[in-house]
Amino acid sequence: MKITLSTGRVVETKEGESILESLKKAGIFLTSSCGGKGVCGKCKIIVQSGDVESRSHIKLSSEEIRQGYALACMTSPLGEITIDIPKQSILTVEGQIVTGKAKDLLAMLNSAGGDIDPLSERIVLQLPKPTLDDNISDLERLKRELFANGLGCLRVPSRFMSNLAKTVRKKDWEITLSAIHSEDCYEITNIFPGNMKVPQYGIAIDIGTTTIVVYLIDLTDGQLVDVASIYNSQIRFGDDVITRIVNATEHGEMEHLHNAVITDINELISILVSNHKIDTESIDTIVVSANTTMTHFFLNLDPSAIREEPYIPTANVFPLSHAGEIGIEVNSKVPVYSFPCVASYVGGDIVSGVLATRMHKSEDMSIFIDIGTNGEIVIGNSEWMMAAACSAGPCFEGSGIKHGMRATEGAIENVKIDPDTFDVEIKVVGDNAKPMGICGSGMIDAIAEMFLTGVINQKGKMQKDVSDRVRDGEDGLEFVIHYEDKRDIVLSEPDIENIVRAKAAIYAGFSTLLNEVGMTFKDVQKVYIAGGFGKFLSIEKAIILGMLPEMPKEKFEYMGNTSVTGAYFCMLSRKLRSEAEKISKEMTYVELSVNNSFMDEYMSGMFIPHTDIDSFPNVKKLMEK
Amino acid sequence: MKITLSTGRVVETKEGESILESLKKAGIFLTSSCGGKGVCGKCKIIVQSGDVESRSHIKLSSEEIRQGYALACMTSPLGEITIDIPKQSILTVEGQIVTGKAKDLLAMLNSAGGDIDPLSERIVLQLPKPTLDDNISDLERLKRELFANGLGCLRVPSRFMSNLAKTVRKKDWEITLSAIHSEDCYEITNIFPGNMKVPQYGIAIDIGTTTIVVYLIDLTDGQLVDVASIYNSQIRFGDDVITRIVNATEHGEMEHLHNAVITDINELISILVSNHKIDTESIDTIVVSANTTMTHFFLNLDPSAIREEPYIPTANVFPLSHAGEIGIEVNSKVPVYSFPCVASYVGGDIVSGVLATRMHKSEDMSIFIDIGTNGEIVIGNSEWMMAAACSAGPCFEGSGIKHGMRATEGAIENVKIDPDTFDVEIKVVGDNAKPMGICGSGMIDAIAEMFLTGVINQKGKMQKDVSDRVRDGEDGLEFVIHYEDKRDIVLSEPDIENIVRAKAAIYAGFSTLLNEVGMTFKDVQKVYIAGGFGKFLSIEKAIILGMLPEMPKEKFEYMGNTSVTGAYFCMLSRKLRSEAEKISKEMTYVELSVNNSFMDEYMSGMFIPHTDIDSFPNVKKLMEK
Repeated sequence: MKITLSTGRVVETKEGESILESLKKAGIFLTSSCGGKGVCGKCKIIVQSGDVESRSHIKLSSEEIRQGYALACMTSPLGEITIDIPKQSILTVEGQIVTGKAKDLLAMLNSAGGDIDPLSERIVLQLPKPTLDDNISDLERLKRELFANGLGCLRVPSRFMSNLAKTVRKKDWEITLSAIHSEDCYEITNIFPGNMKVPQYGIAIDIGTTTIVVYLIDLTDGQLVDVASIYNSQIRFGDDVITRIVNATEHGEMEHLHNAVITDINELISILVSNHKIDTESIDTIVVSANTTMTHFFLNLDPSAIREEPYIPTANVFPLSHAGEIGIEVNSKVPVYSFPCVASYVGGDIVSGVLATRMHKSEDMSIFIDIGTNGEIVIGNSEWMMAAACSAGPCFEGSGIKHGMRATEGAIENVKIDPDTFDVEIKVVGDNAKPMGICGSGMIDAIAEMFLTGVINQKGKMQKDVSDRVRDGEDGLEFVIHYEDKRDIVLSEPDIENIVRAKAAIYAGFSTLLNEVGMTFKDVQKVYIAGGFGKFLSIEKAIILGMLPEMPKEKFEYMGNTSVTGAYFCMLSRKLRSEAEKISKEMTYVELSVNNSFMDEYMSGMFIPHTDIDSFPNVKKLMEK
Repeated sequence: MKITLSTGRVVETKEGESILESLKKAGIFLTSSCGGKGVCGKCKIIVQSGDVESRSHIKLSSEEIRQGYALACMTSPLGEITIDIPKQSILTVEGQIVTGKAKDLLAMLNSAGGDIDPLSERIVLQLPKPTLDDNISDLERLKRELFANGLGCLRVPSRFMSNLAKTVRKKDWEITLSAIHSEDCYEITNIFPGNMKVPQYGIAIDIGTTTIVVYLIDLTDGQLVDVASIYNSQIRFGDDVITRIVNATEHGEMEHLHNAVITDINELISILVSNHKIDTESIDTIVVSANTTMTHFFLNLDPSAIREEPYIPTANVFPLSHAGEIGIEVNSKVPVYSFPCVASYVGGDIVSGVLATRMHKSEDMSIFIDIGTNGEIVIGNSEWMMAAACSAGPCFEGSGIKHGMRATEGAIENVKIDPDTFDVEIKVVGDNAKPMGICGSGMIDAIAEMFLTGVINQKGKMQKDVSDRVRDGEDGLEFVIHYEDKRDIVLSEPDIENIVRAKAAIYAGFSTLLNEVGMTFKDVQKVYIAGGFGKFLSIEKAIILGMLPEMPKEKFEYMGNTSVTGAYFCMLSRKLRSEAEKISKEMTYVELSVNNSFMDEYMSGMFIPHTDIDSFPNVKKLMEK
């Protein structure tokens, strides 16, 4: 049987196989946060002709069903069919933004002083052929040659010992070793006959609670080859880490949570290697940056004690592990470096972020904030650093917001509202892309603009009569940001409530941490902001919203996803790996959940921009206009 | 369904399950060299009542079939049945000889200066409970406590990391680590909640080409607890290492050869732990002593280059491996120490043997010979050592001899022939055991006596009219050693031919190696003999046969299985482990296969005792009598 796509491409299928599966086999990957279980409703397709059998229509409106929409994971063809795949359903591979990013990353690496010195190196050796007089074993011959090349001891895992005799003889005693250098000893991670110095790739991974991002990196020159990202399909076990830990430890879902994240990563890697026609044997290293709980799920470590006072993780510093132990589908001996964490709620993603900002090398007092599903804040300089966590919720990554989405193609990333006509001007990620939803930076823009134009008040409540873009929606009042034939893109009152709660938590985090060290915003020279916002986070709008403190604009720097940048750094540079270890060791963790002033600060932040309007003098002026 | 044994014991079975399987589940182990494939014919049982279905009667005579004999592996009950298990079919566990041996071994260990310092140690720790102020991770807590106890770095394999949080909390922060100390670092091999200092066991294994012997050792006091042995079921892939390598590399049987030896070892371990009601989690260490080829098969290393000039093994020194990598069914992280080898044909069993003799610590010039399937000879003292190999064949282990068997219960181990009446007096292994076959020492006795009484001539040919014990058998002339209702025990002319070839190779090995260093037997102060002969190898008879040189009796010492003794030493003592590594490094290997004088010596040895009768003056006198 065949499925014909609206693009003309034809895909093979067989009876009973879901359309999701058939497309996957053909290298076409749809979003399926729930892992193809008919729960998330993300893999929508439109059946244009032919008969299909659908086991579920969950998450589809009756209008959509009339139009031929179906869930690819729940639908199988009953004969030849033709389908259309809406852009929203296609798993995002951010190939288009790589060229610029690759140069930026290399420049950042250079300015951080990192040479290309990856975790795993390749060594080409020409061994002398054995004779009756030189009859030492193959392993001793290999060790002797390494020693002669000035390289020290050698550990050969049994996997490679088994075929060593064949491997060394295959290309006339020339071989290539992939090896990692640890504790004064080379550990072989792969052996190839002949000269296989290139190609050699690495995989840098940021596992966010909501989003997973994977970089494919050429280890020979440090170039970023491509990027792929996906929603973390653990979302079906809860939006936040606490719910997931409860599911893992009290409802026996540990294995499923581990498998969910591993499956996501394997999917992203398989997309990248298939798009670039790379042999997985040429992948030599994996570096993972993630919060403490995500690192536990990734490494299959029991996270149960993380959520109970006194909040103890199994480990903060993780031994180097191997792909095979964890389930990553590359050569099983590929070393997996997991970023060291600081405490249960300040993880490797924050260490990685600090590494990317370089604040640990500066005398200036800096603040670093990473706004993901949690907000984590670090304050300090090259002499000391303190860190804390504040639960911001996943809204800025698009989760829990009606039309929220990540900052990928089709996301509204900038919003401007005309104060007279209430016409909305938008900017969308991707050249000529059709708007499909709104990402973090778009939300901040939209709410700041809605506030300035009087669409919402200081409490975030909508004023119905201001414009006909304000209307009654499914979840109460909503504001139409973009009119579209099939589906208008809106922000609803509950959406705004979510965002205000998030920004209040972030601002409270800042102030509480500064209070702890007896400082104010005036003492801060630099604020680094990280997170999955759009390419252009508007600092002014974030200040109007009251998420960021009112400070001169030049003190702010928006860094994008610093977690994956730090992973990229560590993948390539030994020097930066040891910096990361130093950062994790020297950072002091402050527990905000037992801090009374944090709760007070949070409550004060539930206004736009803040209850204490005098700390926002410029916003006050704007409001008065 | 039930199987009732003639002893009255009842064993559960189910439809389609072989009797071999059902017995195994009940802890009754039958010999099955072929792994239950209906090939070796060793698992014979007698069905006394009830219906059975047999898929094969291979290796059973029509007389046996009439008597109700069946192969347990090929036979399943069709209803309730009663069976008898002949003694020969029961897998030998040499429990009865342990008491004496255990004391001997401990005394040997003491006199070798080995303290009880096993490869794996158990460390009991009481960790302080975490608090909000002392909130380091579980792993750091563990490391801190080890450090406080003066113990250094720590590697925790992911298998134990996964449940570390639960393990440390289970018995109120008291835990026991099993750990090996390597390269200045502890590597955890097991973690238990609470105090599990005892019990702690080790498994010492001698993998011979023909026989596998396993010792169960109490690591807390060094006591030998029990011994089990079995024919190496690789025999179905060939009697000697060369045939097996050909099968492995040219007929794709590598995996089967590896699995065969692992299955044998697992079977022996499961017998020992079930007999002594031991939890396999209390097994902490495995030490293996074997020749180079057997070590390759055991570790699943490609042995193909061993048999081709210039005879190169994959390795002579093996990295510590883990039970799980190899397939041994104990805790997968149990360290497996494989004895270092010297060359392709002088293996870890010889290094282990030298360690057991202590000749490497003596100034006296000594010879060590291990007569297994191959004969390996070492000559030297504390200053130098040379080693060579001579193919003796497996006959002294009972293989290739019509009624040959290992020196286990029922084996005729001493033979005396009355020169007048030709009545034969025998001694059998085991109290009141019924004779079932003849082992190595019995063969040597028998042939020497047959030679002295004129039953055979100097060429080993039988004289038909000497006695009515000489008769025509299936394979030509044979001499009845023991009359028995069902099956007389005989030695045939082809048996004697085999044994004479073997002794000729051994004697040629001695003389050639001495020639190489310009010495004669007169320069030798001590001859250590190892091998799977009976308890009492008669040196006089071995000299009459011409297997050993004519020297004063007190210069000879029969040591039994030195390979497993050395494994026992290394299991318990760190000092002796480093001695073993030193022996393997310093021994010089002499290749006899390219040595012309070896072939000449071999041909001269094909007479009883030898072509050069003058080198055996006392035997000459006896012959003249």
